[in-house]
Amino acid sequence: MGLPTLGLFIAKWEAPFFVWYNMSLVKKRPKIVCIGGGTGTYQILLGLKKYPVDLAAIVTMSDSGGSSGRLRQDLGILPPGDIRRTLLALSSLHIKKKTLKTLFDFRFNNGELAGHSLGNLLLAALTQITGRPDLAISEAAKILEVSGQVLPVTTDNTELVAELTDGIIIKGEKNIDVRKIKPEIPISEVYLSPKGKIFSGAKKAILEADLIVLGPGDLYTSIIPNLLVSGTCQAIAGSEAKLVYICNLMTKHGETDGFTVSDFLREIRKYLGRAGKRLSVVIVNNRLKLPTSVSSWYKKYKSEPVLLDLEEIDEVKIITGSFATSGKLIRHDPSKIAKVLVSLF
Amino acid sequence: MGLPTLGLFIAKWEAPFFVWYNMSLVKKRPKIVCIGGGTGTYQILLGLKKYPVDLAAIVTMSDSGGSSGRLRQDLGILPPGDIRRTLLALSSLHIKKKTLKTLFDFRFNNGELAGHSLGNLLLAALTQITGRPDLAISEAAKILEVSGQVLPVTTDNTELVAELTDGIIIKGEKNIDVRKIKPEIPISEVYLSPKGKIFSGAKKAILEADLIVLGPGDLYTSIIPNLLVSGTCQAIAGSEAKLVYICNLMTKHGETDGFTVSDFLREIRKYLGRAGKRLSVVIVNNRLKLPTSVSSWYKKYKSEPVLLDLEEIDEVKIITGSFATSGKLIRHDPSKIAKVLVSLF
Repeated sequence: MGLPTLGLFIAKWEAPFFVWYNMSLVKKRPKIVCIGGGTGTYQILLGLKKYPVDLAAIVTMSDSGGSSGRLRQDLGILPPGDIRRTLLALSSLHIKKKTLKTLFDFRFNNGELAGHSLGNLLLAALTQITGRPDLAISEAAKILEVSGQVLPVTTDNTELVAELTDGIIIKGEKNIDVRKIKPEIPISEVYLSPKGKIFSGAKKAILEADLIVLGPGDLYTSIIPNLLVSGTCQAIAGSEAKLVYICNLMTKHGETDGFTVSDFLREIRKYLGRAGKRLSVVIVNNRLKLPTSVSSWYKKYKSEPVLLDLEEIDEVKIITGSFATSGKLIRHDPSKIAKVLVSLF
Repeated sequence: MGLPTLGLFIAKWEAPFFVWYNMSLVKKRPKIVCIGGGTGTYQILLGLKKYPVDLAAIVTMSDSGGSSGRLRQDLGILPPGDIRRTLLALSSLHIKKKTLKTLFDFRFNNGELAGHSLGNLLLAALTQITGRPDLAISEAAKILEVSGQVLPVTTDNTELVAELTDGIIIKGEKNIDVRKIKPEIPISEVYLSPKGKIFSGAKKAILEADLIVLGPGDLYTSIIPNLLVSGTCQAIAGSEAKLVYICNLMTKHGETDGFTVSDFLREIRKYLGRAGKRLSVVIVNNRLKLPTSVSSWYKKYKSEPVLLDLEEIDEVKIITGSFATSGKLIRHDPSKIAKVLVSLF
């Protein structure tokens, strides 16, 4: 079999193996930093961890709802929920030990523990045992055999605040994430109080990165809170990395109602400040067809597909494609999105 | 060096290694079953696990206090506390993974979680995940790399009841363990309501045992509850094993005030019924000297050293020795007690 035939075979096969193989020939593994924290980041990490790259996930620390919020208030620790999810994404525990993964994601339904995730409780205990949130994460990472780094964006106790266009102030991430106060009034500004300083490990990861991936995730409650921390945007501006933004698939009621891709991009650029100049690629899903059951779920929550308004966008490369996968909800497909990301090297 | 010299050397050395070496020459590892569940059993298991024996611990399921009691009530599961402790005793996790052991034994101090042990929460979660208490224990055992078996005496939901000599009835293990109701009135009888049936795994372990060790531990709240379960005494009577009772070091206020060794023995025999005939050895500590700080702690809790009244004891071999070790409290020394137990083969 001649080389051209082999090349054709690989091209037809279309598996990420070829990219993986090529990348593994390069001596220095590329460093990718994903900034976010929610289920969006989880999906991206699931895909990227199959490639020979050095992964770091920087996770928002503004969560104040549910199990995380209760632990934060009771124990004075950082909110563990997004850390837990990110650790699970990067866990390489093999099948024999998967009970540990199941346990880490288990949530109680009854009694005083109802709503608590066991992984959150583990992280809370580790924080109290080690006395430091970053050590708690690295101990949990050892137990879960995590490949890559999971980094809190800050180890300071901060609170997310939103100002609406009518001047109303909403305090606390959980009140912004699930808006009960005037959800029809748009957010004009979000900020942290107190601001909080970037965690040294997160800063180092950004400065050494070859690729920085922002999003997908809730714009004002998962993505932008990372940029609000003092030092994040400076680090991005000072890094040599290519900066990519993965736009959300759906709008979110009370946060991004009616938002098009250019609206997301405008807000991201606004908070990036001068680091916004580094933003060179936006990844946008197209050809979104929702199954009826999924579509009616989103309708109930006043959520709509994000439309691409190319005419409103400039100074950035837009990569479009079919990147979504539909289960009970619609998500970015880990394999498809990872393939695009590694193709950027 | 001639053989006699070597023998002398080993005898002088007095390390358990010689016993261990002899035992490891025997093809079939002896099977030891420890019945109890509390800190007493924990100490014995710590010592025995260093020998080439097959260990099984049968654990009382009557606990209704603290973290265990709350989980029992909220989630309808078996009380996990004694299971947790026993798993920890038999865990062989090496130093690199000791965080997992520390975590399993961690207890929260603040907020709604105050008093809960993380290991108990893990066992509760595993019970809900697997749907069966015995599977929950075996999954936890895998995670903690436990060598040996940890077996609940029953998987039925039972409640311990005590009747005092004045006819008063006290329901619930926690109310008997820490007596607030008439602690000066002795217990005349304890029973389970409902009785509960022996767990098949526990029955099998007893029937196959070469040595059964009862105690040490709280007489009415840790040791006897195992004998109250339907089928335990029948299994002991039907076993070929040597039956040993390790008598407590100290009396306990509200349970065994003023008890001598013969009092403990009488009660144990009473609940063993016809299985009592199998009891051939009682291990009793002597030469108990308490440091002042320890002594004053016990005085505060109206607890006194258990005295040996040889003249009141018959039909059993008494082994006496210095088996105690004193830290903050006084406990059986794992190495000393294990050495005596394995010498019985």
